[in-house]
Amino acid sequence: MPALANKTYFNFGGQGPLPSPSLAAISGAFATIQELGPFSDNVWPYVNRTVGGLRQRLAAWFGVAPERVAFTENVTAGCVLPLWGLPWEPGDELLVGDAEHYGVVAALEELARRHRLRITSLAVADLTEDGDATAGAVGERLEAALTPRTRLVVLSHLLWNTGQTMPIAAVAARLAGHPRHPWLLVDAAQSLGSLPVAEAAAAADIYACTGHKWCCGPEGLGAVAVSERLLEASSPTLIGWRTLEHDGPGAGGYHRDARRFEVATSCTPLFAGLDRSLQLLEAEGDADVRLAAIRQRSRQLWDGLQRIRGIRTLMTVPPPAGLVSFTMADPGGAPLDPAAVVKQLGDRGTWLRTLESPRCVRACTHLVSTADEVEKLLAQLTQLSVG
Amino acid sequence: MPALANKTYFNFGGQGPLPSPSLAAISGAFATIQELGPFSDNVWPYVNRTVGGLRQRLAAWFGVAPERVAFTENVTAGCVLPLWGLPWEPGDELLVGDAEHYGVVAALEELARRHRLRITSLAVADLTEDGDATAGAVGERLEAALTPRTRLVVLSHLLWNTGQTMPIAAVAARLAGHPRHPWLLVDAAQSLGSLPVAEAAAAADIYACTGHKWCCGPEGLGAVAVSERLLEASSPTLIGWRTLEHDGPGAGGYHRDARRFEVATSCTPLFAGLDRSLQLLEAEGDADVRLAAIRQRSRQLWDGLQRIRGIRTLMTVPPPAGLVSFTMADPGGAPLDPAAVVKQLGDRGTWLRTLESPRCVRACTHLVSTADEVEKLLAQLTQLSVG
Repeated sequence: MPALANKTYFNFGGQGPLPSPSLAAISGAFATIQELGPFSDNVWPYVNRTVGGLRQRLAAWFGVAPERVAFTENVTAGCVLPLWGLPWEPGDELLVGDAEHYGVVAALEELARRHRLRITSLAVADLTEDGDATAGAVGERLEAALTPRTRLVVLSHLLWNTGQTMPIAAVAARLAGHPRHPWLLVDAAQSLGSLPVAEAAAAADIYACTGHKWCCGPEGLGAVAVSERLLEASSPTLIGWRTLEHDGPGAGGYHRDARRFEVATSCTPLFAGLDRSLQLLEAEGDADVRLAAIRQRSRQLWDGLQRIRGIRTLMTVPPPAGLVSFTMADPGGAPLDPAAVVKQLGDRGTWLRTLESPRCVRACTHLVSTADEVEKLLAQLTQLSVG
Repeated sequence: MPALANKTYFNFGGQGPLPSPSLAAISGAFATIQELGPFSDNVWPYVNRTVGGLRQRLAAWFGVAPERVAFTENVTAGCVLPLWGLPWEPGDELLVGDAEHYGVVAALEELARRHRLRITSLAVADLTEDGDATAGAVGERLEAALTPRTRLVVLSHLLWNTGQTMPIAAVAARLAGHPRHPWLLVDAAQSLGSLPVAEAAAAADIYACTGHKWCCGPEGLGAVAVSERLLEASSPTLIGWRTLEHDGPGAGGYHRDARRFEVATSCTPLFAGLDRSLQLLEAEGDADVRLAAIRQRSRQLWDGLQRIRGIRTLMTVPPPAGLVSFTMADPGGAPLDPAAVVKQLGDRGTWLRTLESPRCVRACTHLVSTADEVEKLLAQLTQLSVG
C-alpha cells in the first residue's frame, strides 16, 4: 500500500489506502478493455464477468442473493436513489438517527419537502456504552419514537462520529411488527470492510456501502443491498440503459432485480479494483477475525487515550470497531481546536480528521495499523496535550 | 491508442479508444492521491485542482461560465437529474424528438407517470437532407408541435441513429418566444468531441455529455452544462456532500451553481484522464478543424457506400459529422440482418455496431480514422453484399 509508505495513517473511515495489486487490476482492466474493444462484441463477456463477479462476491459478503445487489457511484446514491421511487403519502414520518451523515440528512429533508413528509429524530449519538447497553437503549427509544405514521427509519450500522454500532437486525425485527412495517435504510459507509455485515445487510431494506473506505477499493464505486419488498415497491428514478430489462425502444420495462437502480455507463475498471481489494481482505481471515484485529488496535488506542490528561474519548468503553473519536483540552482545561490538532499531527506526518458534530478528532485503526503506529500517535498526542 | 493496434475500429460513438497518455494520467492520479493522502489535508488541493481544471476546460468548450458545469457519472445522469427538481404541473407536455436514446425516453416516461405529464413526439428521424433543409423542417415541425402546455423539448444535438444534426440554437431561440418558455434538454452524447458545441451548449437549459465517446476519455465521467434559469428553478434530487455549500450539519443549503447537481465521492483519477484526452484533441486543431477532418472520412465512407449495391445510407447527403448509418440487402434485394453483418465484420477484425430503431448498421469515423481503413471497410462490405 503505497499510501502507507510515507505517513502514519488513521483515516480509513475517510478513504482507505489502495493496495498496489488493486491499482494494477484497474490499469489491467483498462488495458484489457482497450485490447478487446472498447466497444465490440469481444468486450462484453469481459465486462459482464467483471461486474458479475463483483456482484457475486458482494452478495456473499451481504448474505443475500446477487439479484438484491445494485452498484452505485457512491454510498449516497445507494442510500438515496431507492427512496425517491417509494410510494410516500403526505404526513408519513421519517425517523432519523441523530448521528447520521449530513449528506443523507440533507437528501431526506428534500424528500420530505417535496412529498410533505415529517422528519423525527431518534437520539443515538449519546449512546457510548457497550453493545448490550446500547442495543437495549436503542430498542427502548425506538419503541417510544415509533408512531402509526412512521414509514422509514434511518440508521447507520457503524456511526461515523461516535464509532458506536447500531443493532440493525433487532431494529429490523421490531419494524416488521409495526402495522405499516416502516422501511429500514442503513448507511453502511463505515461498516463494509470493517464489521461483519451479513446479518444487517440481509435485514435492512436499503443497505448502502462504498468500496473506497474500509474495503480499500478505488473511489467512485459503491453498492447497495435492497430487500425483496423494496424491489416490489420502489420504481427507479434515475433511469438509463442499465435500468432497463431489454435494450432498444419500447422494450420491456425495468429490471425486476436490483439492477433497476443502476443507471448507465460506469467505470468497469473500478469494479476490477474493488474485487481485488476484497480478495485481499478475504485473505486476512473472515469478517470476525478481521474485526478482532481491527479492535485490538482500536482498543490499544482507546486505552492509551484514557491515560492522556485532557483527552476524552466519545466512547466510554473500548470501541466496537475501528473508529476512535475524542476531544482534547489543554492543561488548564480549555478545549483544543480539533482542526489545530489535526493540522499539528499532519505536520508530523500523522493523519486524522475532524468531525463537526460533535466537534472532535477521529482516528481509525484498520488491519494494517501497527502497534508501533498507535504508540507513535499516543506519544504525539501526549506532546500536544501538554502544549 | 492501444485499442487501434489490433483492429479496424468504427465505434467511436459507442466508446472512444483511450490514448496511452490518458491512461498514464489516470494511473498517475491514483498514485498521487495515494502519495498525498488518500484522505489528508495534503490531498485536497490536488483533488480540487484536478476537478477544477477540467471544469474550466469544459466550460471553455461549452462557451459558458464554469459555474454552469456539473460533473456526472454519465450522460444519462446529466440529462435526467436536473429534470426531477423542476416545478412540473399535471398536464404539462414534454415534446420529445423521435430519434432520442431509449434510456432517456424511459426516464422521461417515468417522470411523466409520476407528475402526470403528457409526452408528445417531434418527428426528426426522417430528416436526412442537408443542414439548411433539416433546420427548416425542424423549425416548421416545432412550430406545429408546440402547444400552450409545452414545458420541455428534448432533442439530441447529433442524432445517434441517423447521424443528423439538430439546429439547437434556433430551437432555443424559438422556445424563448413561447409564453411558457419551455426548457430545452439536449442529449449531447454524440456531440462533445465531435461537433463544435459552444453555441448549442450555451443555448440549451440542459446540455449533457459524456467523456468516453468522441472525447476518448475514460468511461464513468460525464458533464452537463445548465442554464442560469434552470439553476434558479431546479432543486437537486440526488443529494450528498458535494451538493451542499458547506460541510457539516445544518449548513447553508445547496450550492447556488451547477455543483448542486453533483452528489458525493467520484473517481478523481478519471478527471485527470479526461482532461488529458481533451488536451490531445485540442492539439489536433479547433473544433471546426477537427470536424472537417472527421467529415472528410465520413464523406469518403458515405460516397463509397453509395457505390455498393444493396446498401442504403440513412443520410441522403454526406453526413454532417462522423456517424454513418446504413442498411444492406443481398443481390436479390432481401434485407441482410444488421447483427449478422456486424458479426461477420467483427470476425475480420472490423468493428461497427447495430442500432434498433431504425434497424441498421452504424459506422463512425473520427480523427484517427485513416483513408485506408475506410477503403478496407468498403471492400469488406462489398464482399458481404455479393454474399
